[in-house]
Amino acid sequence: MVPDGYRFSRVFDTRWNDNDVYGHLNNTTHYAAMDTTITSWLIETAGLRSTADAAMAVVVSSSCTYLASVSFPESLLVGLRAGRIGTTSVTWELGLYAESTGSLVATGQFVHVFVDSATQRPVPIPLAVRDAIEAQLVVSAC
Amino acid sequence: MVPDGYRFSRVFDTRWNDNDVYGHLNNTTHYAAMDTTITSWLIETAGLRSTADAAMAVVVSSSCTYLASVSFPESLLVGLRAGRIGTTSVTWELGLYAESTGSLVATGQFVHVFVDSATQRPVPIPLAVRDAIEAQLVVSAC
Amino acid sequence: MVPDGYRFSRVFDTRWNDNDVYGHLNNTTHYAAMDTTITSWLIETAGLRSTADAAMAVVVSSSCTYLASVSFPESLLVGLRAGRIGTTSVTWELGLYAESTGSLVATGQFVHVFVDSATQRPVPIPLAVRDAIEAQLVVSAC
Amino acid sequence: MVPDGYRFSRVFDTRWNDNDVYGHLNNTTHYAAMDTTITSWLIETAGLRSTADAAMAVVVSSSCTYLASVSFPESLLVGLRAGRIGTTSVTWELGLYAESTGSLVATGQFVHVFVDSATQRPVPIPLAVRDAIEAQLVVSAC
Repeated sequence: MVPDGYRFSRVFDTRWNDNDVYGHLNNTTHYAAMDTTITSWLIETAGLRSTADAAMAVVVSSSCTYLASVSFPESLLVGLRAGRIGTTSVTWELGLYAESTGSLVATGQFVHVFVDSATQRPVPIPLAVRDAIEAQLVVSAC
Repeated sequence: MVPDGYRFSRVFDTRWNDNDVYGHLNNTTHYAAMDTTITSWLIETAGLRSTADAAMAVVVSSSCTYLASVSFPESLLVGLRAGRIGTTSVTWELGLYAESTGSLVATGQFVHVFVDSATQRPVPIPLAVRDAIEAQLVVSAC
Repeated sequence: MVPDGYRFSRVFDTRWNDNDVYGHLNNTTHYAAMDTTITSWLIETAGLRSTADAAMAVVVSSSCTYLASVSFPESLLVGLRAGRIGTTSVTWELGLYAESTGSLVATGQFVHVFVDSATQRPVPIPLAVRDAIEAQLVVSAC
Repeated sequence: MVPDGYRFSRVFDTRWNDNDVYGHLNNTTHYAAMDTTITSWLIETAGLRSTADAAMAVVVSSSCTYLASVSFPESLLVGLRAGRIGTTSVTWELGLYAESTGSLVATGQFVHVFVDSATQRPVPIPLAVRDAIEAQLVVSAC
């Protein structure tokens, strides 16, 4: 089930070695959860191919706000929506929930810029990807 | 579904950053998959508590044989059974399968020794854990 | 050598499996670099003990701005300074440099809140830690 | 300093999130240490290029025996030597030591098979790599 305010979601299973000395998921794990959710949507839904395409998505910034600690073997349910969509970049907005209880664990953002694989210079978001984002990940204002 | 020859199985989802430069799961990921499968069985089925118990399970050896490469976003289905069960140690035998096709990707072994949390000296496998292993993870000879 | 504008630095070696499909450090690695730098300073310089102390440091937010890609086997030189110091929280500011060239790769922030290990409620920064931060990590205005 | 019985060594720094709930390096970290040591030797000394070469090294098996636990912020000193060298494969033998004390923490093995990047079929070890292994990593019998 997609959490309120998001348009897509995916379960992110945790691992024994994600727990740190305090017995909670280390803070880097939340970024792996967000990175994996965005990338799987890009590959599986928007058809981006990680190596074959001329344009690749590069992370230029990311952030996370941690609201509650959570531990393996709990899974995360990661909600995804698109924020600002520019010519060459997109802001992803994410919510991380404890799967068993539905309580919010963290929120975060990633900004991807699309660049030419060869030159590394920014290029427009590939049309098929932009169309998929607009059709499936934008939260419409009421 | 538990793969042939195993008694328990658990899906292990892969992550975008598990793929290395060659576009395949890095070889360390398979150990995280085996470690997570065994530990989740110990916690969720055998009732071992990672910090509260007097006895803890320490890995003394591990190995893996890689048969085929596999890539995110493919998930692994990890089969588990018990091999040799000694007084203080147990050998876990695992099979890693591509979840979507069922084809075998790798096989591996872990040996855990139970030690006293305070002294780090070997102690007998806790009775409840031994009973659960014998009842649920041993493959009976025909 | 501590980079300009920082008060402490530590080398963070990268690993083969930090490189992702694009042949660059995956974006989560930069957080491991920042987390490790802060924690090692807290343990080795400020004397925080990860499990024995009543107060523990919990991450409440983090962010990173990526300026250039970098690849294993390059090491990172991570510069650290203190930003805002509150009663119960501290903001860490970090700069990540390619060790071999000194060029800036990324900048980031972590906010730690100190909490009581038992109750998880915010507590004042332990005095010895606060003193060490003020003496060693604050960048004085001229 | 190269540990007794090995021909090459490299320091492997640990990370805060390598420590698991027990406060020790999780068992998967030792494989990252071995993988990183072998690969850095192949890239930096033997001149293997991870993506440009026709032949790539694929892990077909690995194993580790754990002798003592160790914790971040301790670094590992990883010793490397060549074991059996076949036509298409090489066995790497490794020793992992606590850098501060020199005490042995673990020993391990990796077997690499060289395969054609396009066909994934085994190919002879590239001559320059074989020469470097024989000149620099073989322990001669007395």
